[in-house]
Amino acid sequence: MMKKLFTLIFLGMSAFSFAQSADEVMIRKIFDEALEKGHSYEMLRQLTKDVGARLSGSPGAAAAVEWSRQKMIEYGFDRVFLQEVMVPHWVRGKKEIGRIVNSRKLGSQDVNVVALGNSVGTGPRGTVAKVVKVNDFQELAALGKEKIQGNIVFFNRPMDPKLTDTFRAYSGASNQRGNGPTEAAKYGAIGVVVRSLSSFKDDVPHTGSTRYGLNVPKIPAVAISTNDADLLSGLMEDDDELEFYFETHSQMLPDVLSHNVVGEIKGSEYPDEIIVVGGHLDSWDLAEGAHDDGAGCVQSIEVLRIMKAMGYKPKRTIRAVMFMNEENGLRGGTKYAELAEQNAEKHIAAMESDRGGFLPVGFGISGTEAQQNKLIAWKSLFEAYGIYQFKVGGGGADISPLRTQDVPLIGYIPDSQRYFKYHHTGIDNFEAVNQRELEMGAAAMAAVIFLIDKYGL
Amino acid sequence: MMKKLFTLIFLGMSAFSFAQSADEVMIRKIFDEALEKGHSYEMLRQLTKDVGARLSGSPGAAAAVEWSRQKMIEYGFDRVFLQEVMVPHWVRGKKEIGRIVNSRKLGSQDVNVVALGNSVGTGPRGTVAKVVKVNDFQELAALGKEKIQGNIVFFNRPMDPKLTDTFRAYSGASNQRGNGPTEAAKYGAIGVVVRSLSSFKDDVPHTGSTRYGLNVPKIPAVAISTNDADLLSGLMEDDDELEFYFETHSQMLPDVLSHNVVGEIKGSEYPDEIIVVGGHLDSWDLAEGAHDDGAGCVQSIEVLRIMKAMGYKPKRTIRAVMFMNEENGLRGGTKYAELAEQNAEKHIAAMESDRGGFLPVGFGISGTEAQQNKLIAWKSLFEAYGIYQFKVGGGGADISPLRTQDVPLIGYIPDSQRYFKYHHTGIDNFEAVNQRELEMGAAAMAAVIFLIDKYGL
Repeated sequence: MMKKLFTLIFLGMSAFSFAQSADEVMIRKIFDEALEKGHSYEMLRQLTKDVGARLSGSPGAAAAVEWSRQKMIEYGFDRVFLQEVMVPHWVRGKKEIGRIVNSRKLGSQDVNVVALGNSVGTGPRGTVAKVVKVNDFQELAALGKEKIQGNIVFFNRPMDPKLTDTFRAYSGASNQRGNGPTEAAKYGAIGVVVRSLSSFKDDVPHTGSTRYGLNVPKIPAVAISTNDADLLSGLMEDDDELEFYFETHSQMLPDVLSHNVVGEIKGSEYPDEIIVVGGHLDSWDLAEGAHDDGAGCVQSIEVLRIMKAMGYKPKRTIRAVMFMNEENGLRGGTKYAELAEQNAEKHIAAMESDRGGFLPVGFGISGTEAQQNKLIAWKSLFEAYGIYQFKVGGGGADISPLRTQDVPLIGYIPDSQRYFKYHHTGIDNFEAVNQRELEMGAAAMAAVIFLIDKYGL
Repeated sequence: MMKKLFTLIFLGMSAFSFAQSADEVMIRKIFDEALEKGHSYEMLRQLTKDVGARLSGSPGAAAAVEWSRQKMIEYGFDRVFLQEVMVPHWVRGKKEIGRIVNSRKLGSQDVNVVALGNSVGTGPRGTVAKVVKVNDFQELAALGKEKIQGNIVFFNRPMDPKLTDTFRAYSGASNQRGNGPTEAAKYGAIGVVVRSLSSFKDDVPHTGSTRYGLNVPKIPAVAISTNDADLLSGLMEDDDELEFYFETHSQMLPDVLSHNVVGEIKGSEYPDEIIVVGGHLDSWDLAEGAHDDGAGCVQSIEVLRIMKAMGYKPKRTIRAVMFMNEENGLRGGTKYAELAEQNAEKHIAAMESDRGGFLPVGFGISGTEAQQNKLIAWKSLFEAYGIYQFKVGGGGADISPLRTQDVPLIGYIPDSQRYFKYHHTGIDNFEAVNQRELEMGAAAMAAVIFLIDKYGL
């Protein structure tokens, strides 16, 4: 009996070792294809340099839709289709002006600002007022109407540099941008200046969307570079006469018809079981949207291309989805989930890449305990590639609406140290992305999608 | 008895947990200091922008010596001193010319080349000849004198893009540069063109040192950019008339007096036990030497500065060493070990940072098994920072001469994906280094040095 048991254990281990070894070989081939013959970098060049900026509703966004559609057809995906979605159409207009005025030390001094996405403009006469600096909404409330009314509120809470997960630092500071204008307006502020959500001290302002609340005046709002935030903050001390002037020409136009772009390879055994991998096609208007999220888009297409190039026939249907309008509305992600429900599609997993084209470090999963354990158990297959972080929790904005349909969500995690240098800025261009990091990420994503296809989740 | 044993085990575990927790707290403080109040980035700005390029024997190298000496005094290190060392004095001279000539398809076409470090110049008349392309020394030997004599040998073996440890890819291709000119000269070649040691296809040539053998003619040699290597290789097919012309003005001058710069904090309990942390102060002449190895230099000084800023009094003597002449002679590293032996200094560990200022991933150690196990056991203390690779093997060029004195050598390992874009090029400038990555690396190094100081090795 004991002997039989040992034999069984031995056989079991052998089968396991064999299976794992076959997976190791397959994953090695995926990395080789991505690193030696990969297309992700050239795709990114096209999307950033030939298409360029592609804010929702812009001609650039329409070009990006058509570019992705053609690219997926060119790669011979089994089905390529568009999903109609109405998107917000916000335009920045003429370049913004930001100016410290009446400073005792400097007199008048121009600073680097950009209008927040979705914000109303000041119009050509600008907005000028004294500045009230706060770190958070508690301080704002404590000052109250008496101190805020008629003034500009300056939210100056920095991202905490001590947090090595910079997305946590971002989360800890981002409500200033998302809700700052609404909160300030409740106390009668006439404008808002927000310290840029950056991990670095430099002259580059970071845009990003703000959301106006109901029944509160919409007041204009800009982000100021971190260096200029420090300058302003310093000059305000012991200077009761200092004012801030800014001029923005942004406006929200009527919604526009746009599209998600979907390409798929049909599953050979379980065609009705869908695995999604995606990124968002829209970008901010200030640059080429290379890290945010050109990288995630081309990596998602590359996952399917790699499978085709290797002659791998997935058992399940693998879909690359280019979501529209993540930045200032999430309409594409919402629409995708709506249609999935409406069409009674069975999604067995959804993966998103929207944290930049940096070095892969791992994946996070939100699902059942069994699903989470299954993904995490694959960790050892990735250690040879320096990919070590397989953890519970994660997903992504565009796939999050699928969670109500119990789809397990997987977030691709690259290193986060550099992301908030480029995020939502005018320097998020092709040159900021490293070819090998982008390719390694695509390979890691393809490898996980391969494992989900093979074993389910 | 059983109960006693369990109690002992339990007590042992508690003591261990407590000790580990105190270390965790200390390491967290080290990271906080580096990320919130770090000086490494500003030091790097000074070393790259104010000092600049600093090839051994150049005025820039002398400036770098004086800059580091002053910096260490400014930080109040207990002792700052110079070690005299004679270094080679190679100069590049006028900018190089590289030209494909008599091509059937293109006629004459300029390409991007740089003279290899230590190489002799062609002089103003240049070198021109037909080109024989080989991948390695076996192919060269197979062709022999008959095919090589009087020609230019073109070594075109690329770094293997499939290797995710790019230093392995580098090792697999670098003998072309180090020994190619000597090997080719044995068969009568009159010049050498080497494909740049790069992980990328671009127009940037990579210099680096070559070593001429004894009793073999010294022939001029250049590195060609990877794009131009592909161009040349393509044009050579079916074209017997194609020739290559290059002109270099480099020369080796007499040796020059230079210095290692050493700064130390005296140990409070075991002042005679020395822990070294260092990088090399010299750089190539084409750029500011930011990754190679400004990063390692400022990180090493930062390790000591962090300790002082935190009020940490090391038990052992901690030394930051700026080695001179790693790039084309290793004279500084050799001299340091010589003096250590001569002065009967007891080094208990030496750490080197010379793989760029990128994201920290781990440390490699060469020592006794016990030393290796000790370092590797600290791995769990670093997982919270994404630093996971603690492995046997490693060190660095400048500390390697200490190995004959049985000093355990530790190599700091940052991510390697981007290094061979900048290595030995004209674009290895301050702007190529990310502040947070540099700081994270300095913190990781300081944390390991702290553990060695506390527990020995």
